[in-house]
This record gives sequence, structure tokens and C-alpha cells, in this order.
Amino acid sequence: MPERGLLIVLSGPSGVGKGTVRKALFEKDDNQFEYSISMTTRNKREGEVEGVDYFFRSKDEFEQLISEGKMLEYAEYVGNYYGTPLDYVNKTLDEGKDVFLEIEVQGAMKVKEKIPDGVFIFLTPPDFSELKARIVNRGTDELAVIEKRMTKAKEEIEMMRHYDYAVVNDEVELAVQRIKKIIESEHYRVNHVIDRYENMLKEL
Amino acid sequence: MPERGLLIVLSGPSGVGKGTVRKALFEKDDNQFEYSISMTTRNKREGEVEGVDYFFRSKDEFEQLISEGKMLEYAEYVGNYYGTPLDYVNKTLDEGKDVFLEIEVQGAMKVKEKIPDGVFIFLTPPDFSELKARIVNRGTDELAVIEKRMTKAKEEIEMMRHYDYAVVNDEVELAVQRIKKIIESEHYRVNHVIDRYENMLKEL
Repeated sequence: MPERGLLIVLSGPSGVGKGTVRKALFEKDDNQFEYSISMTTRNKREGEVEGVDYFFRSKDEFEQLISEGKMLEYAEYVGNYYGTPLDYVNKTLDEGKDVFLEIEVQGAMKVKEKIPDGVFIFLTPPDFSELKARIVNRGTDELAVIEKRMTKAKEEIEMMRHYDYAVVNDEVELAVQRIKKIIESEHYRVNHVIDRYENMLKEL
Repeated sequence: MPERGLLIVLSGPSGVGKGTVRKALFEKDDNQFEYSISMTTRNKREGEVEGVDYFFRSKDEFEQLISEGKMLEYAEYVGNYYGTPLDYVNKTLDEGKDVFLEIEVQGAMKVKEKIPDGVFIFLTPPDFSELKARIVNRGTDELAVIEKRMTKAKEEIEMMRHYDYAVVNDEVELAVQRIKKIIESEHYRVNHVIDRYENMLKEL
């Protein structure tokens, strides 16, 4: 039986660039982890494949899973649900594969409640003026909106204390390399491998 | 003020090759850590420098430090003491430098009592037949001696549960790379960097 995989959760404040880092990470060809397949209630588009692009479910089915606590996390967006099915994640981990999730800070904390032994990585801006610059450059000129986003970003950074690792996103490629090293190191954790060694000792 | 350095402790069962791995690790020119300087009661040899090769102390002084709990770990060998002075290690860590220790399993557990937030890395054989081969090849033909060493090795492997990481020594260079990744990852731990971010938040 393989060792159970690791759940790896990448999160961080709005505007820190976690989507960009996740995409760059998944472009590497030596990844040993799977990107978590989401569940949605929106209609399947042409070319999309059930269980590859999404798990497509009715609103009733999705709400049933929510009420049974079987969604690792979920959100509603323009009238449809999007989320991560718990059974799929646990099945993949049991097969010995790592599962990678990139989500908002609020969602990440919900995931931690259900899978506390996941590896929680917080992507941070190199400094706050840099974060502010990214928020300003998002394409709005209204100061009130920018300040609201800054306040939210500060609140989100306060959430860092609940994570295992803080990775600075100064350069996308550097952030990707740091995340890869963290994931590899987590596989060397004694908690992760102790059962295998215990069995080796017993067999001797 | 720099972040406090990390104490990195490499240990593992007799015959696993920790000395070889440590030497290969220290031959890398991009190391960010310092090798811990030992204290000894033996006489200074020609060319040796106080505070570089060893801290040279009298037996009385050494025993005074032991009784005051100021040795991180120590051992007696052919009539002389050898050990790691706690003040030196703490001073180096406070300067923001990592300190690297390579010691026996028994010594490592003593270090953990004094510096529990150190990074404890356990070097393991790829499998037990391999460990047995290494013990046999150490140059003795007496089966009783070999079996005694095997029993000791098994007892030492049981100590793995008290460590943070288990690194397989299948190839020296691979083991070195794994250790380097672990050390780097440990610097990204939220516990390690949270104070800096708290200060950044306060300043905003």
C-alpha cells in the first residue's frame, strides 16, 4: 500500500499572484501531484469532459453534498456553485497521490478544518508597497476601491499565522522553486514515513 | 535584528554514513550555515587555533560547564571530553546564522531537550539489508560483533519517531540535496518568519 499523498493548499491575499504561481508550477513537467478537479453546477460547455474539466452536478445534488459536509470548500459565483468534493480528494490521497489546491484565504481555512494535516502554504508579497502597487495596477482609478482592497489584503495577511509556510512571491520562478522544495521536504517528514519504517523493523 | 538561525541536527544509526554525508554537504560552496565548533579538554596540537578548530578548556572548566547545564551535549573519549557549548550555539543562532551539528542518536536526544525547536534530521539506510551490508563491511569477521551492531542499529532506528525528518542515504549526493531542501524549507516556516510580517503590518 502506498503512503497517503499530501494535500497541498496554496493561498494568500488577493492580488499576490497565486494564480500565476500555480500556473507556472503546473507547467513544470516533473510534478508529482494532481490538480484538484472542481465540482460545478454550471452547464457543461462543448469539449468539456466529466471528471476531467469538472465534475458536473445539479444544484440539488451539490446542495445535498454541502449539507452532508462532503464539500471540502465551495463558493457561489454568478448563480452557480463551484467547489472541491471531499470524497474525490480523499480517494486521490489514498491512492498515494498528492493533491494541489489553489484557493482564497477564506476557503483555505475551511479546508484546514476538514484536513488539518494538509500542507498550508501562504504566498506573500515581498513588501506591502509592492502589494499596494499590484492592487493599484489592477485597473481601477478609484481611491476608495483601492483602499478597501488594501484593508482586505491586510486582514488576509493576518491569516498567515494559521499556515505552515510563508513563501515570498518576489519572482514567479523563485516562488515556484520554493514551493517545490517545500512539497519535497514534506515527504521526508517522519510522520509521513514512520509506518513504512515500523513495518521494515517488524519484518527483520 | 536578523531572524534567529536554525539549529540543524543530523543524526542516524551507526554505520548509516552520516559523517560522509556531512562532509559532502560542507563541500558545497553555497551553504548558509556554520558547522558547530566543539569544545575539548585534549591538548591543542600544532597549527590548531582556539575558537576555530576547537574551544580548548581544562577538565575542571569543562566539568564546571557540564554541572551548570551549559553543554548542549558531550561525551568522553580516551580520557578527554568533547562536546558542544550551549552559549556558543545560542550566540551564533542569535546572530541569525544556522548551526549544523552531526552527532550520535543519544547526543541528538539530549540536544532536543535543550533546543526543542531545532530541525532534527534522521539519516536512514535505504533498507535493512543495506545497513547490515555496511556494518559487515566495516572490517570485522566476528558474527557476534556484527549481530550486536545490528541490534544497536535497530534500537537506534526506533529513535526516528523523535525526529522531524527522515532522509534516505541511498546515494550521498541525493541525501545532501534532500537535506539542503529541508533546511531551505524550514526557513519558510510561518513560525520562523511571523514576527517580521507582524512588524511590517504594524508599520503600515
